[in-house]
Amino acid sequence: MPGKKRILKIAGRLSDPFRFENGKKFRLNKINPGDTLWLKSEDKGKAQEGLQVGIEALAELQDKLYAQDQWAVLLMFQAMDAAGKDGAIKHVMSGVNPQGCQVFSFKTPSAEELDHDFLWRCLKCLPERGRIGIFNRSYYEETLVVRVHQELLARQKLPPKLVTKRIWQERFEDIRAVERYLSRNGVLILKFFLHVSKKEQKKRFLERIENPDKNWKFSAGDVAEREHWDDYMAAYEDMIRHTATPEAPWYVVPADNKWFTRIVVAAAVVKALENLDLAYPAVNEAKLEELAAAKRQLEGQNGPRRKP
Amino acid sequence: MPGKKRILKIAGRLSDPFRFENGKKFRLNKINPGDTLWLKSEDKGKAQEGLQVGIEALAELQDKLYAQDQWAVLLMFQAMDAAGKDGAIKHVMSGVNPQGCQVFSFKTPSAEELDHDFLWRCLKCLPERGRIGIFNRSYYEETLVVRVHQELLARQKLPPKLVTKRIWQERFEDIRAVERYLSRNGVLILKFFLHVSKKEQKKRFLERIENPDKNWKFSAGDVAEREHWDDYMAAYEDMIRHTATPEAPWYVVPADNKWFTRIVVAAAVVKALENLDLAYPAVNEAKLEELAAAKRQLEGQNGPRRKP
Repeated sequence: MPGKKRILKIAGRLSDPFRFENGKKFRLNKINPGDTLWLKSEDKGKAQEGLQVGIEALAELQDKLYAQDQWAVLLMFQAMDAAGKDGAIKHVMSGVNPQGCQVFSFKTPSAEELDHDFLWRCLKCLPERGRIGIFNRSYYEETLVVRVHQELLARQKLPPKLVTKRIWQERFEDIRAVERYLSRNGVLILKFFLHVSKKEQKKRFLERIENPDKNWKFSAGDVAEREHWDDYMAAYEDMIRHTATPEAPWYVVPADNKWFTRIVVAAAVVKALENLDLAYPAVNEAKLEELAAAKRQLEGQNGPRRKP
Repeated sequence: MPGKKRILKIAGRLSDPFRFENGKKFRLNKINPGDTLWLKSEDKGKAQEGLQVGIEALAELQDKLYAQDQWAVLLMFQAMDAAGKDGAIKHVMSGVNPQGCQVFSFKTPSAEELDHDFLWRCLKCLPERGRIGIFNRSYYEETLVVRVHQELLARQKLPPKLVTKRIWQERFEDIRAVERYLSRNGVLILKFFLHVSKKEQKKRFLERIENPDKNWKFSAGDVAEREHWDDYMAAYEDMIRHTATPEAPWYVVPADNKWFTRIVVAAAVVKALENLDLAYPAVNEAKLEELAAAKRQLEGQNGPRRKP
């Protein structure tokens, strides 16, 4: 496996171009969903090998994360349907020990969830120290689907006087504040928007319809949402403009090529974890003595008894 | 029962003097733990009757809160030991339907809780819309006992580089932001600091030691904490100075006289709920029709069958 320095360098080259720590000047149309940087489609095989290296690095980093037990890692995935969220999670995270990694998918909120503040259902699923938590969709849906379909806001039963024109700005402000709080408490946050083109989405929907093995993934509602494509893109752009921060950056990952999406996601996670300077906890003298005593005791129990 | 206007007036007279929406100039020594406003100890009986009126008003308000199902109410109680938190909760809230009211006591955090950000264990217990949630102690302990005993901070296993001198200011800022977020999402927040004097606490501890029925309430650790009295008072003052806001005010309630503490708490809750303008949901025409149809159906089933 290549050394840490080399891995960091490549991971940076792959993921830095798509990392946004400040959204002020962000424009979604500056990111081409078909972008693959210097890689061409004939490099797919090499990219696959690179992904494998990333996955192995990730498994090692996660082992240290777990042993050190100080940081928690939160990865959030947002995207239009068929952009490859599930695939990216599966392919990037499959090498990781499931004991240290939990995925939560947030679908249509339940009655109990609607009865709480909008962050509630996600915050209670936050990862413990030493773990990687993955949110497949997240509280950002509140600034996406709920913004595009404002009738959904009514289902939240908010006191009407709190539903003002400022509500989206308030939600952005509240999300920023909570993410700042989490980062201060040892949660490393990375947010991924897998950016697929409308054309590629159509192609993938048709595959789901035509390929019996993929039929289960298709729902007619997904096609209806395409009608709102431009509204969604505007909502994504506004979300990134208002919630990209140094402590909780957005990665806007080109998603028309699945192999490329996956290697970028892996690179971003590996680089962020490498920068945490994770290490197995140092053993102090007291612990060394404890280990030695335990050894003596075990040997005394099993070894031949000697008379004094 | 007196009218709403009269109840509001008395509730205001009792609780407004102790309400702080802005902590900038707050000084704890301005509040006398023995204060009883215009009431004298011979008025205790009258105060008891007043409390009863408050409890009945509260039960009615909570019924509307539940039916309207838009606002949640969060009452947080903080105090030194033996200041009367449990008694206040018991006596003020006992008239309320338990289906709409839940009390959570936050004691020494568990290993699982320490493995999360410090707000986690409280936020997941937040009340649903239509309910009153009571926190007997809360995340404010993080700025009290953890601040006085900074060795407790080590138990939280935060990444060391995040533990700086700014940590308490950061916690205040984070708490303010989260409370602002909650208030924007329909959670009415009232915070109570029951302010007992060191002398009265000693008297109550002695009672707990001498009275067999109260022995169970006593723990030797409580006396040890008295050594840190001045540090605690400084921590309480700083907490109130930094977290008293219009959307989440502190009530600093004199607590040397239990009968007075309780009536002030009841008054504060009644006044805040009255100001929400709660009402049973209006029945619209569709609902009226539904009711009429149901009535016809029921009558058809049970009444004498008539031939057309």
